[in-house]
Amino acid sequence: MTTQNRQVTLYHCPYTRSTGALTLLEELGADYQLHVMNMKTGEQRKPEFLAINPMGKVPTLTHENAVVTEQVSVYLYLADLYPEAGLAPPLGDPLRGPYLRWMVFYGSCFEPAVVDRVQKREPIPEQRSPYGDFDSVIRTLLAQMKDGPWLLGEQFTAADVLWGSALNWTTQFGLIPEVPAIKQYIARFIERPAYKRALAKDAELAAAQAAAD
Amino acid sequence: MTTQNRQVTLYHCPYTRSTGALTLLEELGADYQLHVMNMKTGEQRKPEFLAINPMGKVPTLTHENAVVTEQVSVYLYLADLYPEAGLAPPLGDPLRGPYLRWMVFYGSCFEPAVVDRVQKREPIPEQRSPYGDFDSVIRTLLAQMKDGPWLLGEQFTAADVLWGSALNWTTQFGLIPEVPAIKQYIARFIERPAYKRALAKDAELAAAQAAAD
Ligand SMILES: N[C@@H](CCC(=O)N[C@@H](CS)C(=O)NCC(=O)O)C(=O)O
Ligand SMILES: N[C@@H](CCC(=O)N[C@@H](CS)C(=O)NCC(=O)O)C(=O)O
Repeated sequence: MTTQNRQVTLYHCPYTRSTGALTLLEELGADYQLHVMNMKTGEQRKPEFLAINPMGKVPTLTHENAVVTEQVSVYLYLADLYPEAGLAPPLGDPLRGPYLRWMVFYGSCFEPAVVDRVQKREPIPEQRSPYGDFDSVIRTLLAQMKDGPWLLGEQFTAADVLWGSALNWTTQFGLIPEVPAIKQYIARFIERPAYKRALAKDAELAAAQAAAD
Repeated sequence: MTTQNRQVTLYHCPYTRSTGALTLLEELGADYQLHVMNMKTGEQRKPEFLAINPMGKVPTLTHENAVVTEQVSVYLYLADLYPEAGLAPPLGDPLRGPYLRWMVFYGSCFEPAVVDRVQKREPIPEQRSPYGDFDSVIRTLLAQMKDGPWLLGEQFTAADVLWGSALNWTTQFGLIPEVPAIKQYIARFIERPAYKRALAKDAELAAAQAAAD
């Protein structure tokens, strides 16, 4: 594993979902390059990038010949690629299952629930909706956060980078209830040096894009 | 790993999304028990089960003290727990990233796209929707299926159990276009002995539930 080339490239647009992936790269101390795109000029919808990810979405990661798209898989992939950082419970660890559960729950339940709420869509009956309803999602999340300080308890994992990033922007946009447990969780997350480094990087990249416009 | 207790329990309702997880257990030759619930009588919404999965959803898996919910994480967890079955490219394998990508794409993009279509919801602008739009999802999937015979090429993986199961029921319900590549993929999948065993098991379980009603 250690003789393997572990340098990855992150296709990134500042201040988007790929900022979370950038934060994770910083947390991992990973060997990475950024391929920065300007979302304002629609660079992520140009043929060059669509040839890599036909969905036109960031984060997108490349590692040697592999292309990894979708936040949740980008996080799972990276955290396993840098096991020495200890951000992924290894295979066989009792926390591996819960770790996967909370990673996947984010993309399969939380995001769809938030989108439906933003769009003010008529809820469908709980039993026919893959995420039940918005309140079940939040209630399930809060129950998991109860022990803390992190999602899986004492151990900070890549799942916290995902949830910390997401809860941070969704509360900023007023999309989810600002209950104390969530506010405290976010406060712990944004204190982390890796998050601050990613944010500083984004500020720099966004300024450069603004100057070039 | 091999001295570990690998027996798992699947919380299962016949003819639902947990049928795919049952198929995977059969493909893996896993050591499993079923905890069968009757969805018609709402057993999955009783306090006993909500104490395990507050979302009231199947598939739900337990292994020793761990609870794993969400199809995609149940599949990822199980395929890694039985590596000798060869249904998960191991860490370090060039197919690991694509494998995670297509697993996650299912829950984060395909299901939300299908639900929105079933509900006849007004599409939101591609750039603001986490899955873009329905056509991008199908086009991206078809591009991936081009090489075949399986999603990652020659190697059949747990991702094919997920997609085979899902494409099978979504085409039966007329939810996605019945293009030849999809039809042929499903035809290959439903020929597999593990799928047939899972289906026979479901028929038996459903009959027992109907008799008890
Ligand atoms: N399902 C995707 C969603 C990613 C996503 O929506 N990214 C946005 C940025 S926050 C994007 O790339 N939008 C550009 C576009 O669609 O053109 C994931 O989880 O990674
Ligand atoms: N996001 C969940 C969705 C699972 C789901 O919706 N399961 C249905 C059966 S197909 C269910 O358990 N419904 C029962 C209920 O909601 O009461 C997953 O991917 O596992």
